[in-house]
Amino acid sequence: MQAKNIAIVGSGLAGSLLAIYLRKYNHQVTVFDRRPDIREVKFSGRSINLAMSIRGWNALDKVGIGEEIRKLAIPMNKRAMHVNNQPEYYQYYGKEGEAIYSISRGVLNRKMISLAEESGAVFRFNEKVWDVNLPEAKIYTGETEKGEWKEYAYDMIFGCDGAFSRVRHKMQRRSRFDYSQDFLDAGYKELGIPANDDGTHKLDKNSLHIWPRGKFMLIALPNLDGSFTCTLFMPHEGENSFESLTNDKEVEEFWKQNFPDTMDLMPTLLRDFENNPTSALVTMKCYPWSYWDKVALVGDSAHAIVPFYGQGINAGFEDISVLDDIIGAYKGENWQEIFEKYQETRKPSTDAIAELSYRNFVEMSSKTADANFLLRKKIEKHFSEKHPNKWIPLYTRVTFTHRPYAEALEIGDQQAAIMDEIMQIENIENVWDSEEVEKQIIAGLNAYQVV
Amino acid sequence: MQAKNIAIVGSGLAGSLLAIYLRKYNHQVTVFDRRPDIREVKFSGRSINLAMSIRGWNALDKVGIGEEIRKLAIPMNKRAMHVNNQPEYYQYYGKEGEAIYSISRGVLNRKMISLAEESGAVFRFNEKVWDVNLPEAKIYTGETEKGEWKEYAYDMIFGCDGAFSRVRHKMQRRSRFDYSQDFLDAGYKELGIPANDDGTHKLDKNSLHIWPRGKFMLIALPNLDGSFTCTLFMPHEGENSFESLTNDKEVEEFWKQNFPDTMDLMPTLLRDFENNPTSALVTMKCYPWSYWDKVALVGDSAHAIVPFYGQGINAGFEDISVLDDIIGAYKGENWQEIFEKYQETRKPSTDAIAELSYRNFVEMSSKTADANFLLRKKIEKHFSEKHPNKWIPLYTRVTFTHRPYAEALEIGDQQAAIMDEIMQIENIENVWDSEEVEKQIIAGLNAYQVV
Repeated sequence: MQAKNIAIVGSGLAGSLLAIYLRKYNHQVTVFDRRPDIREVKFSGRSINLAMSIRGWNALDKVGIGEEIRKLAIPMNKRAMHVNNQPEYYQYYGKEGEAIYSISRGVLNRKMISLAEESGAVFRFNEKVWDVNLPEAKIYTGETEKGEWKEYAYDMIFGCDGAFSRVRHKMQRRSRFDYSQDFLDAGYKELGIPANDDGTHKLDKNSLHIWPRGKFMLIALPNLDGSFTCTLFMPHEGENSFESLTNDKEVEEFWKQNFPDTMDLMPTLLRDFENNPTSALVTMKCYPWSYWDKVALVGDSAHAIVPFYGQGINAGFEDISVLDDIIGAYKGENWQEIFEKYQETRKPSTDAIAELSYRNFVEMSSKTADANFLLRKKIEKHFSEKHPNKWIPLYTRVTFTHRPYAEALEIGDQQAAIMDEIMQIENIENVWDSEEVEKQIIAGLNAYQVV
Repeated sequence: MQAKNIAIVGSGLAGSLLAIYLRKYNHQVTVFDRRPDIREVKFSGRSINLAMSIRGWNALDKVGIGEEIRKLAIPMNKRAMHVNNQPEYYQYYGKEGEAIYSISRGVLNRKMISLAEESGAVFRFNEKVWDVNLPEAKIYTGETEKGEWKEYAYDMIFGCDGAFSRVRHKMQRRSRFDYSQDFLDAGYKELGIPANDDGTHKLDKNSLHIWPRGKFMLIALPNLDGSFTCTLFMPHEGENSFESLTNDKEVEEFWKQNFPDTMDLMPTLLRDFENNPTSALVTMKCYPWSYWDKVALVGDSAHAIVPFYGQGINAGFEDISVLDDIIGAYKGENWQEIFEKYQETRKPSTDAIAELSYRNFVEMSSKTADANFLLRKKIEKHFSEKHPNKWIPLYTRVTFTHRPYAEALEIGDQQAAIMDEIMQIENIENVWDSEEVEKQIIAGLNAYQVV
């Protein structure tokens, strides 16, 4: 494979993993980032912990760094549900041994940058890319947009610069570039639960904790140091909104009423609430993802999604492992075809995970505490355990398999239609494990297989 | 009403009409345009003639310039269908006296700028707006993006700068700004049919001529000087595409095969085809349309649509007449509320006309030549003539009424569902004017009115 001189814009998770992959083939790799080296600064207070699952691990293992990263991760094999006036209860994500993994975004990013540097990639921090010449693969950096710029020429440029990508921004001004950005009415704020004095966790550490409250919810994911990173998701405006909580007293009142069991766990609540920014949640889609054989988008810059399926980082890392498979298939020759194949392969799947993530906000914030929903999940689980080849639940397919997201969405919709019918059966709460129900599910599946 | 100092970015049709409206209230109005004065340059060869209908006329009449503009327009009361191996036939758009009006975009724009100048608006041509300070209503102009800029401060700024608006572009970089741009696979190219030597039209001048050919089509709209402005709509790529026609020989072959009856009408076909650009077709949506009481978008900058319903200019002009009604209702005070009311009122309707315009591409290019479609239209027309209060056809509602586009879309979908059922009736081609069919349509309408 001919070694290329490659620029990556963005030193986040996608950028640093891509650097490691490209170094495998001895390409020269320079990573630009407008921000300072994250290893030398305090974290921003606007992060949601990652939930790494099989797609992410696969991409790390393929390049030999999975073991190293696993040391930073805490397995979560279940949801721990906190419903007011009910004891905490668990919903297991998968079968025995199946789990998703909590990792601090900042901790992971620091490690990934170090691993990329060890592999031979060069990082240029505090260097802002203002413009890109797409057909010539040139980038322009400088202190200010209007000031003096430096020009760099490369063989190829990868845009790994996130949801508000400068590289994509440049592509977007071209004709025939499809693009959309859609903001949720809800935003989020990072909060925290500190460790006990002895360094242990204040809640079960192998759970993703959820306090579902209908239009808003609180979640908590464990960190290695005994703390939890919490995220409050809530509408920006209206009743029970970020806008409606304007001072300590209002926050405290709101909290007492809605999350009374966490009051003792969150001694820094009021300070965190005031200091940490309220961030927006966006779904961003675009196409195409590449320009000739010169420029390609990877990760959030190509497909930013809302965080409710825990798949953002998994989707980004899977981009890279799929791209790597295609580079291998083409022996690293003809990059235009590589990029075209890459975007054609990934686009339907990232559209699908965008849709699933959007839908999951409703599921997580309201349905997880709903009796009908729980019965439905129980029936699915029962059937799936009896017929594991006939029924892989949607969550399992997304989280614990490598099958394309697009397939998961399609089959998930078929399963949902079948379950809608099942839930109409009279007295379903008593006959849910009957032979009749089982037969009806099988009949439903057969109907789809015929179509 | 307190007189404001207002900048309008863009001297196109929306910008010049808005200037005339704002001058009514004695606001100071300055219109910026990056291009030279269209009154002093040749037209670009990338225009589609406008089809002005009642919404556009209403906006012009309200400000007293309708009569002046009618002198530039040719009424078209029907589609003239050109199907190969069939004689030309007509589809009337509405009732006796109802018509849409063909106007050359360039001719109209020249006149509108002169009228705006007469009303006291100041035009600054050849002055490129590079940046906008939204909260302070400042604009920055200059020769180049990197060069020296001039700063202007206003009380308010209106972005009337089209589908690729700089003003919107600035709003788009803010958080919580929803935005999408979607390109059709088809593009278009302007072509022409010159006048006869005696200045008469070579085809019926009171028709919008269509040559529907499935995935592509040719249309022709009359001009005052006896010529027609033609537009070829065709996929960018694939069989029968712009990409597939690379030289005169291929164009000629394609034309002979698909539009043989036009060969004699279009002596400059090959030259036009080569010289005129192939342009893209985009649907652009965004929200919100305003920033505080400082900046608002009007026309294509807020909602660019594809041209297949002939409503682009009508929707833009209707923005202005609706905005004017709201300004009146608020007596020109509290511009933040005026802008919020304006965007809330207009957004559902411009989304609806975007959808209808997109759907109409299919109707115009393939269905207009389809026997089933024609029968369907015949049944609708028959019923509508008998029960004019029960059934206003969708096209009529969009083109010949002032009812909101959103209502037209909703009722149109109900009518379509009823007609889908009707077309399933056995032997419908013989019983289409029977009492039975009439009763079933009424039953269908009643069902919707109950819901």
